[in-house]
Amino acid sequence: MADFLFHKSLIIGVGLLGSSIARALRKHRISSEIHGIDENAEVLMKCNDLNILTSGKKDIQDFSFQFDLIIICTPLSSYKKIFLSINDFVKQPTLVTDVGSTKVSVIQDYKKACHNTHVKFVPSHPIAGIEKSGPEYGFSELFENRFCILTPVNKNDESIKRIKSLWESIGMHIDTMNADHHDRVLAMISHIPQLIAYSIVVTATDLEKHVKEEVIKYSAAGFRDFTRLAGSDPIMWRDIYSKNKDAVLEMLGRFTEDLSLLQKAIRNNDKELLEKIFTSTKEIRKLIENAGQAGTFMPTEKIKKS
Amino acid sequence: MADFLFHKSLIIGVGLLGSSIARALRKHRISSEIHGIDENAEVLMKCNDLNILTSGKKDIQDFSFQFDLIIICTPLSSYKKIFLSINDFVKQPTLVTDVGSTKVSVIQDYKKACHNTHVKFVPSHPIAGIEKSGPEYGFSELFENRFCILTPVNKNDESIKRIKSLWESIGMHIDTMNADHHDRVLAMISHIPQLIAYSIVVTATDLEKHVKEEVIKYSAAGFRDFTRLAGSDPIMWRDIYSKNKDAVLEMLGRFTEDLSLLQKAIRNNDKELLEKIFTSTKEIRKLIENAGQAGTFMPTEKIKKS
Repeated sequence: MADFLFHKSLIIGVGLLGSSIARALRKHRISSEIHGIDENAEVLMKCNDLNILTSGKKDIQDFSFQFDLIIICTPLSSYKKIFLSINDFVKQPTLVTDVGSTKVSVIQDYKKACHNTHVKFVPSHPIAGIEKSGPEYGFSELFENRFCILTPVNKNDESIKRIKSLWESIGMHIDTMNADHHDRVLAMISHIPQLIAYSIVVTATDLEKHVKEEVIKYSAAGFRDFTRLAGSDPIMWRDIYSKNKDAVLEMLGRFTEDLSLLQKAIRNNDKELLEKIFTSTKEIRKLIENAGQAGTFMPTEKIKKS
Repeated sequence: MADFLFHKSLIIGVGLLGSSIARALRKHRISSEIHGIDENAEVLMKCNDLNILTSGKKDIQDFSFQFDLIIICTPLSSYKKIFLSINDFVKQPTLVTDVGSTKVSVIQDYKKACHNTHVKFVPSHPIAGIEKSGPEYGFSELFENRFCILTPVNKNDESIKRIKSLWESIGMHIDTMNADHHDRVLAMISHIPQLIAYSIVVTATDLEKHVKEEVIKYSAAGFRDFTRLAGSDPIMWRDIYSKNKDAVLEMLGRFTEDLSLLQKAIRNNDKELLEKIFTSTKEIRKLIENAGQAGTFMPTEKIKKS
C-alpha cells in the first residue's frame, strides 16, 4: 500500500465528473480502494458494469469502515445535506474536497453543517468537464493539463498540500485564490457564456416551425457551438445560478450594457464603431492563444463528416 | 479542356475564402485557369508564393481577356463597385456568383449596378469558413459536406444549374431559398451568435486588470469558444451587420427578451423555471445531433496539450 497517496477514497456522486475522478485515481494508482455513493441506482449499476468502483452504495451510512479521502461531486443544492452526513459519519482524520463550480456557497454550507474536527475540508474547483452527463461518458484523461482552483477556508491549513498533490497526481495545474474572487472570475468565463448559450437556444426554439428546422439544418454556421453548451446537465446549472447569483447578475449587467452598445451601433449604422470594437476583440483572442489556452480547433474538424 | 466545367475563372478577393475556392477549383479540376483580383498587393504576393493562381491583378481592367466564371469573395460594402466594374468589363456570356453572408443587399446592389445582359448572376452563400483571414489560412477541403444556399434573382434562371454544379463539384450540398428568408435564418444562426461573442469579449476586456488576466488564463472553462468567433475578420462582420440590419435587430430583440427572462428567474431564485428551460434546450441539441450537424467535439480535443 506504500505506493498509494490514499488508502480508502469515497466519491459522493459518480456521474460524469465523479466517475472520471474514480477512473483517474485508479489509472494513476492514487488510491488503493475507490468507493462511491449515488442516490441514483441506475448510475451505480452503470459504474458496476463499467467496473469503475471498489464498491458503490446509496448512502454514506451504508459503509462499515472509514475513509481517508472524500470527494463531493454532486450538484451544489445537495451540499448542506452531504456535509451533515459527513459530520455524523467521520470518526477519524479525513481529507474532504469537492468539485463545485461556485465556492462562496460551498464554504457557507460547510461552516453551517460541519463541526467535526476530524473533517479536513479544502474546497476545490477542477476546471474540466464536457456537456454530457452520466458515468458512461467519463474518462480518466479529463483533468490532464487543466487548471484546478483551490479556495482554502484557512490559508495555513496543513491539508492544502495533500489536496494539491491529489489534483496534481491526475495531471492538473493548481492555483489558489479566495472564494469571492473565484466566483466572480467563473461568472465571467463560465456562467455567463453558459447562460447566453441557453438563452440563444431558447430564442431559436421559439421561432416559427419552418425557420426552426433550418436553424437546425444550417447550425454549423455558428449556432451549433452554443447548443453544445446548452446540452449540459440542467440540475448542475440550475444550482450554479442559484448559488452564484450576485456575481452572475453583476456580470450579466455588464454584458447587456455592452450588447446594447452594439445594438445601437447597428441601428445607427455606425460602421466606424463596429469596426473598432471588432478589431479590439481580436486582441484578447491573441492573448489567449499566446497563453496556450486557445485549445485545438483544427479547421479540418469543422468539415469532418458527421 | 473538355474535362473542365470552366475555362477561365476569376476570383475577386483572394483572402481566406477566395483562396480556398481557388485551391478547390484546381484540386477538383473545375477550371483550367484560375485568375485572381485583390486590392491588397500583399495578399496577391502571398497567393503568388503559394502558387494558388494562374495570375493575380489589382483590377479587372488589368485583364486583356474575358472569363466564363467570376466569383465575388470580398466584403459586402465593396459589391456595388464590383458590380459596376463587371458591368463595364464583360463582353461575352459570363456566369457570376458570390459568397456573401447576406443576400437581400447583394441582389439590391446587383440590380442597381449591373444591366449588362451578358452577366448571368446567381447569388450564393457557401456556409463555410474559419475565424482566420488571409490566403495563407485557406485550404481546398473547406467546403466538403457543408451547405451552400442559392438565392436566385429569377427562379427559372438557366444559370442556376451551372452554379449548382460548381458548388457540388467542390463537395457542397445545395439548397435554394428566397433572399429575405435566407437573411432571417442566417441572422439567427450566425450573425447573432457572432455578435454575442463580440459582446462578451468586450465585457471581459473591460474588467479590472487582474480579473482580465485570469479570464484569459482559465478561458478553457467556456469563454475561449466565444473568443474564437471574436477573432474573425472585422471588416467582413462590420458589413454583415450593416447589410442585414433589420433581421439582426429583430433576432437580437427576441434574444434580449429571452435573456431578461433568465435574468429575472435568477434574481427571483426561480429554480423551477431555470430547470425547465435548461431541460428544454437539451432537446434542440439532440435534434441537431440527429440531423448529423453537431460536428465532432471529441472530449480529448479539449484536453489536448496546447
